[in-house]
Amino acid sequence: MNTDLKTQIIERVTPDLIQVEQALEDNLAPHLDLVKQIASHLLFSGGKRLRPLLFIHAARMCGYGGRNEALFSTMFEYLHAATLLHDDVVDGSALRRGRDAAHTQWPAAQVVLTGDFLLARALDVAARTRNPRVISVVANITRAMSEGEIDQLDKKGRTDLTEAQYMTIIARKTAVLIQGACRCGAILAEASEEEENALADFGFHLGMAFQMADDLLDYTATADQLGKNPGADLREGKLTLPMIYSLGRAGSKDREWMVQMLTDSTFTPEQFRKLKETLESLNGISYTRKTAQGYVAKAEQALGIFKESASKTILNLIATYAVHRKV
Amino acid sequence: MNTDLKTQIIERVTPDLIQVEQALEDNLAPHLDLVKQIASHLLFSGGKRLRPLLFIHAARMCGYGGRNEALFSTMFEYLHAATLLHDDVVDGSALRRGRDAAHTQWPAAQVVLTGDFLLARALDVAARTRNPRVISVVANITRAMSEGEIDQLDKKGRTDLTEAQYMTIIARKTAVLIQGACRCGAILAEASEEEENALADFGFHLGMAFQMADDLLDYTATADQLGKNPGADLREGKLTLPMIYSLGRAGSKDREWMVQMLTDSTFTPEQFRKLKETLESLNGISYTRKTAQGYVAKAEQALGIFKESASKTILNLIATYAVHRKV
Repeated sequence: MNTDLKTQIIERVTPDLIQVEQALEDNLAPHLDLVKQIASHLLFSGGKRLRPLLFIHAARMCGYGGRNEALFSTMFEYLHAATLLHDDVVDGSALRRGRDAAHTQWPAAQVVLTGDFLLARALDVAARTRNPRVISVVANITRAMSEGEIDQLDKKGRTDLTEAQYMTIIARKTAVLIQGACRCGAILAEASEEEENALADFGFHLGMAFQMADDLLDYTATADQLGKNPGADLREGKLTLPMIYSLGRAGSKDREWMVQMLTDSTFTPEQFRKLKETLESLNGISYTRKTAQGYVAKAEQALGIFKESASKTILNLIATYAVHRKV
Repeated sequence: MNTDLKTQIIERVTPDLIQVEQALEDNLAPHLDLVKQIASHLLFSGGKRLRPLLFIHAARMCGYGGRNEALFSTMFEYLHAATLLHDDVVDGSALRRGRDAAHTQWPAAQVVLTGDFLLARALDVAARTRNPRVISVVANITRAMSEGEIDQLDKKGRTDLTEAQYMTIIARKTAVLIQGACRCGAILAEASEEEENALADFGFHLGMAFQMADDLLDYTATADQLGKNPGADLREGKLTLPMIYSLGRAGSKDREWMVQMLTDSTFTPEQFRKLKETLESLNGISYTRKTAQGYVAKAEQALGIFKESASKTILNLIATYAVHRKV
């Protein structure tokens, strides 16, 4: 069923994906070898191109008929990649998308600067739209994301993070970019204010659901599925919704060792398996899944004002996939 | 004489400086405490605000009469500060402007993210100009600077850097931003193409001279004047013009121990003093000074097409000061 969903999406977006890949490469082509190597290591390691696809189909659903959608869509992938590069350095994560994280292969300094370079590429593409509103949205995304990352870093290791604080963090870290991609699609298509806001709403809720699903997968997926070891968040002392919810419902004894797991990064696979069982029995897993599904429902609801179209179907399929995916 | 020059500039730009400081603070005000702390540590530690002042007076010399010059000028200081934060992390420098570099006081990760945040502030201000050309220039600056830094990092420790390679590095690292500030001032004032290009020319040559003077000061200034220990470039294995020129003229014995100094960061103050003497006797110091003065002359020449004005005087004073300053 999930494979079916993925196949359905891939079938529909393959021509777009080919164009996006081409545009991503073209925009890197004239630059320094070293930058290209580091940037390509991450950019061409099998990302889903979720953000470019959302931008393209948001624009098309709003009636965009121009030819710049693939080119402009790259700004959201560059922004995303820039953030991932800086995050991996910041977090010290060893793996990303099943490959060694860039900073394990090149000095962290070069990875930071390559992140800056990709941010500059995003800007450059934004400037090429010659649309001040698009540029304004991109500026806001960048600011919100850096604030979100700093906030998350600041709260790392805190065992009293509330659900509301978690929501604020993931909104800035993930939802704002996905929202921006959808909103800019509408702006490019010169959509009405109502349509633009509906797409921003769709993107925001989808982004929230997407991050919750990600945080869930860090507990429920296998290393093979993830392309990295599960439990990475826990190991970094990053508190996410499955754990936040469960901590709030745990007895004092359970609570104590759960906090212990969170503050000590050297847990065994066996201990991690036991923690997962605890999260399941305290409903942290099902609560997170249900919450994510609630956000997907709101995302789909936001699309209600649009008449049926191939792009609307794709956006809805992506929303469903966001919470059903295994990777 | 140099103090006089500085006094003359300060007298003329004090009202602008007050406005720039206010705008820099206003634009940070609504943001996360931690971000503000880290950003302020660098931003308000006595920078010269060279880039905002150049932007403001470029605009005014071209007849700009609007009220947004101070606000818009902040983008160049934010860009500059963002780069400094990332550079200090990249270089591992301990001091900046006489204070502990931010990354010695906060985790490097937070400093990297604060750099991202300041970049986003710059973008945000650029977006507020609603001028696609300004935004395009800012995007190009950001790209060139990150490429320059990566290139410099890549060439660090190489003892065969040529003068031409050095020029390419400092162009991207420093001149492009100063050029951009001057060009954007002209764009804001809706100057003619000829005026805009003249200001870009002025900015580029000034920027080159400014960086050469900086590289010179790292050999000739005292720790008190610099606010950090001299010899920092050498200690980091960064080859700059005084050394490049001297290496090309040194006998094989001198050359050998100069390269030794460059590759071994543990030299004594006495060894550093001896190196300085060698650079002087091989004319590396005077050659660099003369080259910088040549660039200043070209910068001043570029202003020739403009009629006399208070702002033109200020730009010329700043150009002269760039190579005569002691800090």
